[in-house]
Amino acid sequence: MKDVKYKIDKTLSTPLYLQLYNAFKNDIVSGRILDNERLPSRRRLTEVLGLGKNTVDLAYQKLIDNGYAISQPRSGYFARRQSPINTDIFEPDFYDLHGISFNMSQNGIDLPSIPKNTLVKLYREIIYDKPELFEYGHKYGEKSLRKAVAHYLYEVHGISCSTDQIIIGAGSDYLIEQLSHIFGSSTVFGFENPCYARSYVPVKNSGKQTTLINVGLAGFDVEDLYKSDIDVLYISPDGQFPTGYRMTAAQQKEILDWANEKPDRYIIEADFDLDFSDKGGLDPLFLRDTSEKVILLNSFYRSIAPSIKTGFLVLPKKLKERFDERMPYYTTLKSRIEQQVVAQYIQSGKYQRHLEKLYNIYSSKSKYLKDKINSCSFSKYVTIHHQSGGTHIIVSVDNGMTENELKISAAKMGVKLLPLTTFLIKPNPKLPASTFVMGYGQLSEAEIEQAITRLDKAWANKK
Amino acid sequence: MKDVKYKIDKTLSTPLYLQLYNAFKNDIVSGRILDNERLPSRRRLTEVLGLGKNTVDLAYQKLIDNGYAISQPRSGYFARRQSPINTDIFEPDFYDLHGISFNMSQNGIDLPSIPKNTLVKLYREIIYDKPELFEYGHKYGEKSLRKAVAHYLYEVHGISCSTDQIIIGAGSDYLIEQLSHIFGSSTVFGFENPCYARSYVPVKNSGKQTTLINVGLAGFDVEDLYKSDIDVLYISPDGQFPTGYRMTAAQQKEILDWANEKPDRYIIEADFDLDFSDKGGLDPLFLRDTSEKVILLNSFYRSIAPSIKTGFLVLPKKLKERFDERMPYYTTLKSRIEQQVVAQYIQSGKYQRHLEKLYNIYSSKSKYLKDKINSCSFSKYVTIHHQSGGTHIIVSVDNGMTENELKISAAKMGVKLLPLTTFLIKPNPKLPASTFVMGYGQLSEAEIEQAITRLDKAWANKK
Repeated sequence: MKDVKYKIDKTLSTPLYLQLYNAFKNDIVSGRILDNERLPSRRRLTEVLGLGKNTVDLAYQKLIDNGYAISQPRSGYFARRQSPINTDIFEPDFYDLHGISFNMSQNGIDLPSIPKNTLVKLYREIIYDKPELFEYGHKYGEKSLRKAVAHYLYEVHGISCSTDQIIIGAGSDYLIEQLSHIFGSSTVFGFENPCYARSYVPVKNSGKQTTLINVGLAGFDVEDLYKSDIDVLYISPDGQFPTGYRMTAAQQKEILDWANEKPDRYIIEADFDLDFSDKGGLDPLFLRDTSEKVILLNSFYRSIAPSIKTGFLVLPKKLKERFDERMPYYTTLKSRIEQQVVAQYIQSGKYQRHLEKLYNIYSSKSKYLKDKINSCSFSKYVTIHHQSGGTHIIVSVDNGMTENELKISAAKMGVKLLPLTTFLIKPNPKLPASTFVMGYGQLSEAEIEQAITRLDKAWANKK
Repeated sequence: MKDVKYKIDKTLSTPLYLQLYNAFKNDIVSGRILDNERLPSRRRLTEVLGLGKNTVDLAYQKLIDNGYAISQPRSGYFARRQSPINTDIFEPDFYDLHGISFNMSQNGIDLPSIPKNTLVKLYREIIYDKPELFEYGHKYGEKSLRKAVAHYLYEVHGISCSTDQIIIGAGSDYLIEQLSHIFGSSTVFGFENPCYARSYVPVKNSGKQTTLINVGLAGFDVEDLYKSDIDVLYISPDGQFPTGYRMTAAQQKEILDWANEKPDRYIIEADFDLDFSDKGGLDPLFLRDTSEKVILLNSFYRSIAPSIKTGFLVLPKKLKERFDERMPYYTTLKSRIEQQVVAQYIQSGKYQRHLEKLYNIYSSKSKYLKDKINSCSFSKYVTIHHQSGGTHIIVSVDNGMTENELKISAAKMGVKLLPLTTFLIKPNPKLPASTFVMGYGQLSEAEIEQAITRLDKAWANKK
């Protein structure tokens, strides 16, 4: 690193050392400073930037503390590249600042529809009847829950599998991390870009090899898949996250053909909104697969209650055998009591009725939101894209403002709205700018109306 | 691999292909067949071993399915080394065979003392009072639980920390896996050999670098630590697992000195039986540490109830800041309801009283077991080693039988008893043979008496 071009602004309230730290950190994360590249000496920084020695020391210490640099005695400081995970999704400072009233970010769910009374009743019955549930449980989950999941998969999605193929776990992020461990170190995991970070990050954190495949609003090109070194592909055929793109039958077949070409290729099918997405969807890949190539990953996180983080894997028999061998220490991390609550909720048929209810709630909110957008004055600048159900729609805005201006002006009006680019792991020219996830899951109809009125103020009449 | 020396026994009930598979698998896992070494051709195997082509194909297919081999078109089969995790601890077939009546393996706990009634009452109150607990929770755990943990750490162990330093998670194995992700890929994690596999395996699975340090019945040599490349050392100063060795104050200081010599060195202190071990122990390292070098890892798994898998980390402030930066997607995986149950159980003072009770139960069982051993006829062959409380003692047997003969003869009498060598990750000449973990946690006094009577029959009068 030859030139030090950072601008440190002494009039800002952000401490000087933190400005310097952030400047280095951003360049290391983005790759402008290479892994293992020597950083400027402390003396040089104090001279060029006119900073005190203490300020520079504090910044370097923080880089070291957070793993972005190491210090080599007698030879200086060297950058340490981290995997570039975009944490904009959180940005607590930015949103605290603006006092968000309407959270339209991805993944919000309709909280009033959580079946609290039913769950409370089940809890009370179960803990009263079965105090032995405080003792040890089955490593793959309660038999009753695996039975209930198998039953529901058959009833709702027509999928036949045995309870032995099902692995229960405390959430889909935990399950994908554990699943990744059964593949060898030469296995390359493929993720779409952008994608659902809570699936990508655990695999990346575990030191597995990953390859990203760029998607646009119409998915990815199967040719790109063939050209890649991917062995295990993670996809959501019923609704790509966050673009919402739903695969065609022809694309599903192409992906299965790809998997069938080599013995070590597999597909992880993770459609977290499948249970309440609209009915126009195709059969899950798992159902179309005839050669043990597809692993099903799903969760009741969004469909029952966030606090009851219960996910499951359905593995082809061959891979389940491998899981048995490789993961002798696997456990669900779920309390047996909660497993029984979920099992009885499903077994009683209440879950299936709950899904109908959720489907109606989200369809009607989605329709309401689209109507509101179409009837407001900025509608002429807006394109609403296809969406596959779930809890958000995708809108492109073309009113002359930049993506960042759109986002900030919305936030200033109290509406949190994230552009698709927030979910990118690396730059992707296929993805249009100024295109936003507009989540309606968490908002009531009255709130949707107010949010759109505010966006109208922020975005109308700009061109 | 030049010579094929496997003996396939056609008179056994185990299928031939499975015998062949197991022979290869064992050699690949143990390293007798090297990683990437070419395996014999199928033709050669059929000739040398007199097996059918189908049998050989089935065995090779199973090796491939389970990741122990790959097939390269036109050049044959090649071994794929797996990390050698000893799964003897489970050996379900071996123990099913013998019909175990007395499980003296490690880690059993006194099931009748699980405070079921209190927990049931807390559950019922909490789910009735706070249905909002089904909604989203704090990523690091309920504030009330982190407060309760901070309070209990101070009350019981004199440890002061803020709630911000505490991270709740669904069990210690999950927490150590996530913790390992905040260190760079060049970080080497040090584990003792033998050690607690449920801590070692998650770190190993995550592709982190590990170095093992051999321990004997008197711990490890600090010189070995200095000679190693270890950066982050995992230890249990109050009772090494499984040897039960408790560090002296001088050793504690040596380890802290080692950590203080380099900025990137840290210690993970994980004493899972600390809460009910005898009172002769020293202060935790965490308390003696003055330079943010020690990470505390613990769990209420054994001290409250196995099903309520609730663990916690206490991080030095600097490392907590790094965790915040590196792990934006971390979540506890625990339901908020159960977190509240644990929080109220601790906050009410009931947990502290429960610990007194557990301490009394385990001390008295331990004393009873030692008395029984000392008064039976094989006592002249037995040495009972120091032990630091917890739920097992360590005994060496010197009656002329081999370790395996001792283990099998015990199993034939219905007693499951594991030698220390079961817990080795790799061979360790420091560890004495014929030395067993004798767990009393799960057995009543009457069962302890019967188990010792049976061992007496199995082991006495052999020399």
